[in-house]
Amino acid sequence: MQAELVMIGTELLLGEVVDTNASFLGRGLAQCGVNLYRKSTVGDNWLRIIEVISQALGRSDIVIISGGMGPTDDDLTREAVAAAANCPLEENPQVVQELESWFRFRYGSRVEIPLNNRKQALFPKGAQIIPNKRGTAPGFILEVNAKVVIGLPGVPAELEAMFNETVIPYLQGRNGSHKLVTRNLNFVGIGESHLEELVYDVVANQTNPTVALYASQGQVRIRLTAKADSLEAGQALIDPVEEQIAQRTVDFMYGLDEETLEEVVGRQLSEQGSTVALAESCTGGLIGHRLTNVPGSSDYLMRGYVVYSNQAKMDCIGVKEATLRQFGAVSAETAQEMSEGVRRVSGTDYGLAVTGIAGPGGGTPEKPVGLVYISLAMDGNTKTEKHQFVGTREQIKLRASQAALRMLWLASRRQ
Amino acid sequence: MQAELVMIGTELLLGEVVDTNASFLGRGLAQCGVNLYRKSTVGDNWLRIIEVISQALGRSDIVIISGGMGPTDDDLTREAVAAAANCPLEENPQVVQELESWFRFRYGSRVEIPLNNRKQALFPKGAQIIPNKRGTAPGFILEVNAKVVIGLPGVPAELEAMFNETVIPYLQGRNGSHKLVTRNLNFVGIGESHLEELVYDVVANQTNPTVALYASQGQVRIRLTAKADSLEAGQALIDPVEEQIAQRTVDFMYGLDEETLEEVVGRQLSEQGSTVALAESCTGGLIGHRLTNVPGSSDYLMRGYVVYSNQAKMDCIGVKEATLRQFGAVSAETAQEMSEGVRRVSGTDYGLAVTGIAGPGGGTPEKPVGLVYISLAMDGNTKTEKHQFVGTREQIKLRASQAALRMLWLASRRQ
Repeated sequence: MQAELVMIGTELLLGEVVDTNASFLGRGLAQCGVNLYRKSTVGDNWLRIIEVISQALGRSDIVIISGGMGPTDDDLTREAVAAAANCPLEENPQVVQELESWFRFRYGSRVEIPLNNRKQALFPKGAQIIPNKRGTAPGFILEVNAKVVIGLPGVPAELEAMFNETVIPYLQGRNGSHKLVTRNLNFVGIGESHLEELVYDVVANQTNPTVALYASQGQVRIRLTAKADSLEAGQALIDPVEEQIAQRTVDFMYGLDEETLEEVVGRQLSEQGSTVALAESCTGGLIGHRLTNVPGSSDYLMRGYVVYSNQAKMDCIGVKEATLRQFGAVSAETAQEMSEGVRRVSGTDYGLAVTGIAGPGGGTPEKPVGLVYISLAMDGNTKTEKHQFVGTREQIKLRASQAALRMLWLASRRQ
Repeated sequence: MQAELVMIGTELLLGEVVDTNASFLGRGLAQCGVNLYRKSTVGDNWLRIIEVISQALGRSDIVIISGGMGPTDDDLTREAVAAAANCPLEENPQVVQELESWFRFRYGSRVEIPLNNRKQALFPKGAQIIPNKRGTAPGFILEVNAKVVIGLPGVPAELEAMFNETVIPYLQGRNGSHKLVTRNLNFVGIGESHLEELVYDVVANQTNPTVALYASQGQVRIRLTAKADSLEAGQALIDPVEEQIAQRTVDFMYGLDEETLEEVVGRQLSEQGSTVALAESCTGGLIGHRLTNVPGSSDYLMRGYVVYSNQAKMDCIGVKEATLRQFGAVSAETAQEMSEGVRRVSGTDYGLAVTGIAGPGGGTPEKPVGLVYISLAMDGNTKTEKHQFVGTREQIKLRASQAALRMLWLASRRQ
């Protein structure tokens, strides 16, 4: 079963919105074992939308369309699918009713549905409606000549919920026995080329699963993709290859698939019953933000200090003025006093500290932009690392947060 | 002049990488006044890549390809362009030389170029080479039958530098006098439908510039797009429409184009010579992270406290135990003590505090997930707002940070 994506919206072509829907749908289809061979993006133009949908219907079994489902004149998806599939539009009475109650709930009992929104109740005849619990634009599934067209709104939160709740079960029901099983191995603290050297022969010798490396957002991943008759059979093909790679990369491979480094660190701290406090200078709160993205992080993250000024470093976590004067705010000595100080004032098991120069200004020949010291204090033992990162201000912050979380990951994992 | 993008890479279809190159290229083309009507994405498959490139060459003047330029067997772009454009491959001696010096610089003077990398010196005959200062994969510009094919590597930092340094000047040289001028107006604290009501007649009556609304990442934008003979003429068409919209949205429109709320807030604080300190509970450091993404933020952001535990709220910024007991950590009373406390202990002009329930757990009927109190303390005056956000944990954190930065924006702007 072969699928194709059609993303609709001039804003996608103008580059004003990064298309996260496409990657979300790609991942979801891979998990359902549906092959995705193509993705097309068009603007809000009537003729081009019809052309793209017609071509997609010509070559693929399933066409998933995102965007153009709203109430405005620019929203043309429903009409274009009706035209491309040669299937008249019909008002869906249940959707009319839901729109009415939505508007009355929001704007009072005597309100009529605006004419524009009423358009959102029109669907190609015979389409199954996909309810939208987070907005006014329902989606639809239209089966036509042994093909399927699925229309979803472009708002990511709405699209994601509708895909997970309605489209996945639908596709799984339709899909045959052929599955594409994918597993991603996530690495930190190692570059793509170094990792490739470590696993070169594995990559070269594997055909099922295939092994591919790629880098994104400050980390490297290896993707294992197996073709098999069932999920279990695919996983059985993947397991030994994962094991082989894991053995060679113990200090770098931290997790699988969508697992983030902060989730793994959080799980380890929870299992240990340990607590941590943060002292962030150049990362400015990013490490706290990442750790608190994980539900339940209040169990182990007690507090953090964004000690941006020297005064704050001294006031909040007891860095000595003499240390700042003698070695500077960006130094191993200051980093160590920060991590030990934040641990002491917070009464936590770990104290994690970062100080560095995120740039673009503030660098000197001795202390260039990207120089970052990271220090982790624990019971009777403090480790301090020096890093030299490259990139923009935001990349340096991200890389520093990765390196800091890696220290905490290595220190807190079961030996 | 009409362009089309072809993005190559199985990882893009599997959704493991969010395609930021496409949005970067879309913005860049719009700035050059080149119309972009289509974008196609295909996996690393020889036949499908040729098919997509041939179709694109059939209907567009300029085809820009990203990805598939590396050294591995999966990298098929150069070969596919040669096949689609019916143009033989030729080894470029200058690229061979550069690859040699790159490898010798890295691995020592006696090293030969690996055979795989030598492939990267093959280009369709007659192609102009685009130098790549950040990696080993050069790009190319191939003119063939009055059309242009441009090949760029998929690594964002490499693609972006090569596009800015070589492709933009090339396109500007080719392009005639017709320009597409775009300006985005950025809003905070207002929903898409409410904003549409405020500017409904402007949207309805405008044809040049066109006016379009869209929502993304916790904020709403209005895009104004003018067609004109010059940049200046386009801007002159846009100015009065922007002015008309700005007058109706004074408390919501904070900036233009890529300007972020944290940049605008930072600029205002700098101009005022004011300082701020943060007390973040449910946002966990996100506000500090956002403010410190702006270069020079150390001038006005003195410090922040991630007071995740009640103990931290009391220890660090003097929230009273009685207040926490009587009203709870998520309450207007606690928020107010947080903002006034963080201002007092930090000695800053502003104290900004956030406390709430980011979810997914921790909600009750009285205090549901998404309930957030935001408080801003300034000289002789503290304002506290109650918000009820919806969404995932990360969305609620983002929306809370937007609302908090909006309070600081409104308070610090020139009256």
